[in-house]
Amino acid sequence: MQFIDMMIKNGKVLTMAPDNAVIERGAVAVSGDRIVEIGPEDVLDSQYQASKVIDACGGIIMPGLINVHTHAAMTCFRGLADDLPLMSWLEEHIFPAEAKLTPDIVYKGTLLACAEMILSGTTTFCDMYLYEDAVARAVKRAGMRAVVGEVLYDFPSPNYGPIEEGFKYTEALIDKWRDDPLIAIAVEPHSPYLCSPDLLRQAKAIADRNGALMVIHVSESEQEVAQVRGKYDKTPVEHLAETGILSPNLVADHCVALTQKDISLLKDFDVKVAHNPESNMKLASGIAPVPELLANGIIVGIGTDGCASNNNLDLFQEMDTVAKLHKVHTSDPTVMDARTVVRMATIDGARVLGLEDHIGSLEPGKKADIIIIDTRRPHLVPMYNVYSHLVYAVSGHDVVTSIVNGQVLMENRVLATLDVDNVMEDVNRIAQSIVLKAGA
Amino acid sequence: MQFIDMMIKNGKVLTMAPDNAVIERGAVAVSGDRIVEIGPEDVLDSQYQASKVIDACGGIIMPGLINVHTHAAMTCFRGLADDLPLMSWLEEHIFPAEAKLTPDIVYKGTLLACAEMILSGTTTFCDMYLYEDAVARAVKRAGMRAVVGEVLYDFPSPNYGPIEEGFKYTEALIDKWRDDPLIAIAVEPHSPYLCSPDLLRQAKAIADRNGALMVIHVSESEQEVAQVRGKYDKTPVEHLAETGILSPNLVADHCVALTQKDISLLKDFDVKVAHNPESNMKLASGIAPVPELLANGIIVGIGTDGCASNNNLDLFQEMDTVAKLHKVHTSDPTVMDARTVVRMATIDGARVLGLEDHIGSLEPGKKADIIIIDTRRPHLVPMYNVYSHLVYAVSGHDVVTSIVNGQVLMENRVLATLDVDNVMEDVNRIAQSIVLKAGA
Repeated sequence: MQFIDMMIKNGKVLTMAPDNAVIERGAVAVSGDRIVEIGPEDVLDSQYQASKVIDACGGIIMPGLINVHTHAAMTCFRGLADDLPLMSWLEEHIFPAEAKLTPDIVYKGTLLACAEMILSGTTTFCDMYLYEDAVARAVKRAGMRAVVGEVLYDFPSPNYGPIEEGFKYTEALIDKWRDDPLIAIAVEPHSPYLCSPDLLRQAKAIADRNGALMVIHVSESEQEVAQVRGKYDKTPVEHLAETGILSPNLVADHCVALTQKDISLLKDFDVKVAHNPESNMKLASGIAPVPELLANGIIVGIGTDGCASNNNLDLFQEMDTVAKLHKVHTSDPTVMDARTVVRMATIDGARVLGLEDHIGSLEPGKKADIIIIDTRRPHLVPMYNVYSHLVYAVSGHDVVTSIVNGQVLMENRVLATLDVDNVMEDVNRIAQSIVLKAGA
Repeated sequence: MQFIDMMIKNGKVLTMAPDNAVIERGAVAVSGDRIVEIGPEDVLDSQYQASKVIDACGGIIMPGLINVHTHAAMTCFRGLADDLPLMSWLEEHIFPAEAKLTPDIVYKGTLLACAEMILSGTTTFCDMYLYEDAVARAVKRAGMRAVVGEVLYDFPSPNYGPIEEGFKYTEALIDKWRDDPLIAIAVEPHSPYLCSPDLLRQAKAIADRNGALMVIHVSESEQEVAQVRGKYDKTPVEHLAETGILSPNLVADHCVALTQKDISLLKDFDVKVAHNPESNMKLASGIAPVPELLANGIIVGIGTDGCASNNNLDLFQEMDTVAKLHKVHTSDPTVMDARTVVRMATIDGARVLGLEDHIGSLEPGKKADIIIIDTRRPHLVPMYNVYSHLVYAVSGHDVVTSIVNGQVLMENRVLATLDVDNVMEDVNRIAQSIVLKAGA
């Protein structure tokens, strides 16, 4: 009998391992921050004695979801402005609101995002925003896992001022969080249209020097492509290739408007792609050619983007949209099958963030980032196919338990690390001040 | 002091009345099956003494949602087959499964659908399927409101056999349920490609004689249009016009593939349209030109279609898809604004079903079909705009209380009329027998 910290049992275990193994009445043994073993419940029961046993009640035990692109603190602006032309939305509503941001607002907005993400089954996310040290601190308090990075652009930032200070801020973040088990720092230039080639090259140098991921918005819309073509006579992807930015450590967010040559470049450099269909739909940006990217072997994960353009952080609903949008767009109901989409939200999301050795699947030795879905609900009955349910029927509300790095962050829908009433109250107060300022 | 049966208070009351009135701290007074008055909580408090008081806890009090097109009992086939070409899905999976249907299966499948719909805020739905008397009985037991009709087509039905018997079955349904406060019977020929002109004319005669609604699938895909063109040298809508079927009492389901002339015909005859975007996306059928239909003054409601092609009955998630899909499809983020979409799922849905004098908005004298949404949840914080939240952030899981015809069907997420465990167990048993038969 081996003593372990935690056993999760009585569930259908979806491993998302390379063999896509599903264990019908399975269990997962956890010790410390790691998965020790996965197998049939009766086998594990005879081998392990656990301090804590979690009963999945016949539900689904699976890897926590990975949101590969969001701006967490934008929860503060959820529903502040919708159904508007992109430029009016950005320039009349979002930018003025963002000019008033403080580290405290970003911290509290991120805590709210963490609460929402934990409640809906996301255990890891990749963030780009202002005051990212506050984001990292909020993530740490919530107990989630995240890749965070300060947004860099040519004009002065409300946080760090001129770009030279932005590079210093980024390097200070990297130093501060270097050995953290939950936080990784990325270098995050905003986009080819807001960043000079020189900025991009310096950013890449910092990323390379520190073995850090690089994250950038690329080709979010045809308008952006036209703008970059006007300036550089190249598509955004071609321009990034020429600037020397494309690499396996680059996460390209959106990739909506791509040429065949762009796709070849992304493939040749093994660039990772973050697909954000609901935001792209809501802002009328377009539809990323994801089936084609996948056919070319490019790794694509799923993101919600920020709450101001979605307006929620529920990756289960986003999976549903991923599957359905591409079927209707390509007139082919066989593309983006359910299992492919679940892989995008788990193991492929881990690959996008360079974390596939640690998370994204349930395998012995990997970090214990695990969620449990309660399937004893009318909208999840009957169940013929678990992948179909996860994509087309489950929503984030069906997640009952969430574990990150071996720590239980939610059990039976109750958050363990956050006082949810306080977190909501803080953001309600922020929203009141935003409305008051807008009125004044 | 007037004595009433029920007062719902302490909520933001969204009336969806012609003036779109929203009462910030409002209350709704209910007596018997009807709404007596709506107003500020303090005003109603001073006028009414209620036997039962429901506290909305600062949430949203609004009309129950109206699902204008579904096949409720297809819950039994939820996730049975996905990601397949339409014809393989239908002919290899759905039709063989449907051939085994019995009134008992339809009854139990419909109960499950009712449980799911009540739990997600739908109070009225329009159904087309086999054994519709069983559907009506299930709806009645659940306490919901529905328009139901037996599907009619040229080939023999597993229920009634030859079409002459189908007409008799429909007329018997009309007689049986004539004065029911919750059930209305519609005459429902399947589609222009499965129904001869003669069938359609006889169906219309029955509908006219009984003042009943008529419901039909129309132009669900380009393939269907090509098929009907091949047979009649006309589009499905033109063919229905020539056959004399178009009228203000006709509900045309889907309307994905329409010509300009089709749209003019729908407008001229004041035909009502049921829009089912998620099913149309999942089956890769296409995208209905809803913004254009609305611009032409055509009344459009929202449906989920059956669970085998969605795979859930959550109208809140469907609203989110309605808004986002058309923005990206038209490249215009201003189309299908949130309030328009909420109207489609409430008062316009009522208009589609000819029930706008009774339901679809909260107004004195109307039936008390009311839902309450709990907004004290991280993904609904903060709230700048109630319509934006309902479309882009709320999901059916946020509905806590559901009232139909003055009867409480759910309070604090607990169903009052259905034993949810039994309902789920029954359908799980049906699913096992479907799998066993498929294996044999």
